[in-house]
Amino acid sequence: MKFILASASPRRKELLEQIGLEFEIVPACGREETAFTKPEEIVTDLSRQKAEEAAQKITDRKEPLAVIGADTVVALDGEILGKPKDEADAYRMLSMLNGRSHKVYTGVTLLLCGQGTKQPHSFYEETEVVMYPMSEAERQWYIATKEPFDKAGGYGIQGRCAVFIKEIHGDYNNVVGLPAARVYQELKRLGIDIYRMGGA
Amino acid sequence: MKFILASASPRRKELLEQIGLEFEIVPACGREETAFTKPEEIVTDLSRQKAEEAAQKITDRKEPLAVIGADTVVALDGEILGKPKDEADAYRMLSMLNGRSHKVYTGVTLLLCGQGTKQPHSFYEETEVVMYPMSEAERQWYIATKEPFDKAGGYGIQGRCAVFIKEIHGDYNNVVGLPAARVYQELKRLGIDIYRMGGA
Repeated sequence: MKFILASASPRRKELLEQIGLEFEIVPACGREETAFTKPEEIVTDLSRQKAEEAAQKITDRKEPLAVIGADTVVALDGEILGKPKDEADAYRMLSMLNGRSHKVYTGVTLLLCGQGTKQPHSFYEETEVVMYPMSEAERQWYIATKEPFDKAGGYGIQGRCAVFIKEIHGDYNNVVGLPAARVYQELKRLGIDIYRMGGA
Repeated sequence: MKFILASASPRRKELLEQIGLEFEIVPACGREETAFTKPEEIVTDLSRQKAEEAAQKITDRKEPLAVIGADTVVALDGEILGKPKDEADAYRMLSMLNGRSHKVYTGVTLLLCGQGTKQPHSFYEETEVVMYPMSEAERQWYIATKEPFDKAGGYGIQGRCAVFIKEIHGDYNNVVGLPAARVYQELKRLGIDIYRMGGA
């Protein structure tokens, strides 16, 4: 079984490396359009689009593949926050998140590709994140680090923004961009033993 | 203000680097003895011992110093789990933690040293960690990674053990070994502006 990460995100790459998975990267962005409206449905749908797009690019492969697609959004007060468009948008997002709780959703699709078959297994994880109050100066300072711009919700929990994260409820890596534990547990459930432990 | 980390832990070093603090390392281990019995009191006492020990080593410094001492333990069923002594001890700890919830405590002391004065500010953070069930083969596999041996409770949330962490409630970095957000927030409360933001 060969693993393919359908994402160019350096954070998702690092997470799969952290858990010791050997994989190849085939970037995919999906159509970025969905008919769904609930955050957990949106991320699940977009993760499947990405996995399918990456699988399309490598139909010449002979060996069995597991393509991993993932999509992350931040949700607050019924609004879905993606990546900020510019500084003003980043400031708006940080001001919304400031001093309170929001939710982060990552959808994942494991697309198992065999001889002419494609089996998608999709799931999502939800994590609550509680932020400390950020002063105006702190928000401006954080935007000046340039960290917000490639990240859903305009912050990275694994970067400088760590000093503003009071607590989380759920999986931490889900906030970073990929719930690696759930990926491992789902692969195990599907009979895929990534560490070759045998009787595990 | 010069910052001193009173710990040789590579994980604490990485966390302070992540939040962009400039600091120097002066390792200290404390007496590792305490009259306290509650986990939150033990880690607070030991963090203060470490900060005081490091401060003793650098009494020749002229500039104002903030010495950061920290100590982490895992607590479950009234037992305090430190670092495992050997493989059997690591297996015992992982079997205790397996498939259920435990608590991680990190105590921190910020020892502010000026002209002949030393002001300790101590606090602790508590994080609940919920683990997925680990099979016998998974426990043996994890011990074979050698990760358990220098870590309280016999596991590292930031390493391969990530695949067995279902969720946490509280601060993630507290489980890694230093609640960096709380350190920043407490320094701010003490009027110490590590990012030189001025009006923050």
